[in-house]
Amino acid sequence: MELTHIEHLGIAVKSLEESIPYYENILGLKCYSIEEVKDQKVKTAFFKIGQTKIELLESTDPEGTIAKFIEKRGEGVHHVAFATNSVTDCLTELSDKGVQLIDKAPRKGAEGLNIAFLHPKSTHGVLTEVCEDPNKK
Amino acid sequence: MELTHIEHLGIAVKSLEESIPYYENILGLKCYSIEEVKDQKVKTAFFKIGQTKIELLESTDPEGTIAKFIEKRGEGVHHVAFATNSVTDCLTELSDKGVQLIDKAPRKGAEGLNIAFLHPKSTHGVLTEVCEDPNKK
Repeated sequence: MELTHIEHLGIAVKSLEESIPYYENILGLKCYSIEEVKDQKVKTAFFKIGQTKIELLESTDPEGTIAKFIEKRGEGVHHVAFATNSVTDCLTELSDKGVQLIDKAPRKGAEGLNIAFLHPKSTHGVLTEVCEDPNKK
Repeated sequence: MELTHIEHLGIAVKSLEESIPYYENILGLKCYSIEEVKDQKVKTAFFKIGQTKIELLESTDPEGTIAKFIEKRGEGVHHVAFATNSVTDCLTELSDKGVQLIDKAPRKGAEGLNIAFLHPKSTHGVLTEVCEDPNKK
């Protein structure tokens, strides 16, 4: 298993409309995509900085994961996603090493990536995603 | 002001001794440095993945910032640090744009970087650091 770089940081925000101007006008980044991921009940906005994307996450459902995260902890970093060549191989290796998986098999995330989440109980508190870009294969 | 990449993620952990094996043996990263930053009351451990470092932070004082963060929220991502060519220029521009600064002037951080923190009230909940490497000038 090789993790090559931090593919993105997922950041929970109350409102894309209110937070995009901070990333664009204050930090000088450019929002290049807005996408709804229905099965995750979020609207996402993407920015790129170096090798890494920033993925802002706004809940589309008051009962959604992101809404509950913000209710409990406020806006902030929600997850860290590492890029890998094979999510399937990663999950096998991580599971063999005793890591608790949220997703036992890859599923589709934003931008068409194959993704899977690891449980923060196994990762010292960091909700961790592994992801691969099927278009790069 | 140009932010070039994510220089590091600061991750609060209860114990370096307990968390370093996760990053090394499970994620396959290599801890290349352990350093105490006395004025921040932390011991740090560094890993590199792509352009970005992971900086684990263990409090050396039960009243320190990291100890209080963990008491309130548990282990997890503490701050996001962006690389820039001039922290001083950044702070001037950010202050002019109304961003609330924790550090009004650069100070020394781990690895000899010049660093400054922005207040999460101004950054949609993400404790944000800007940093420059004086050896790269």
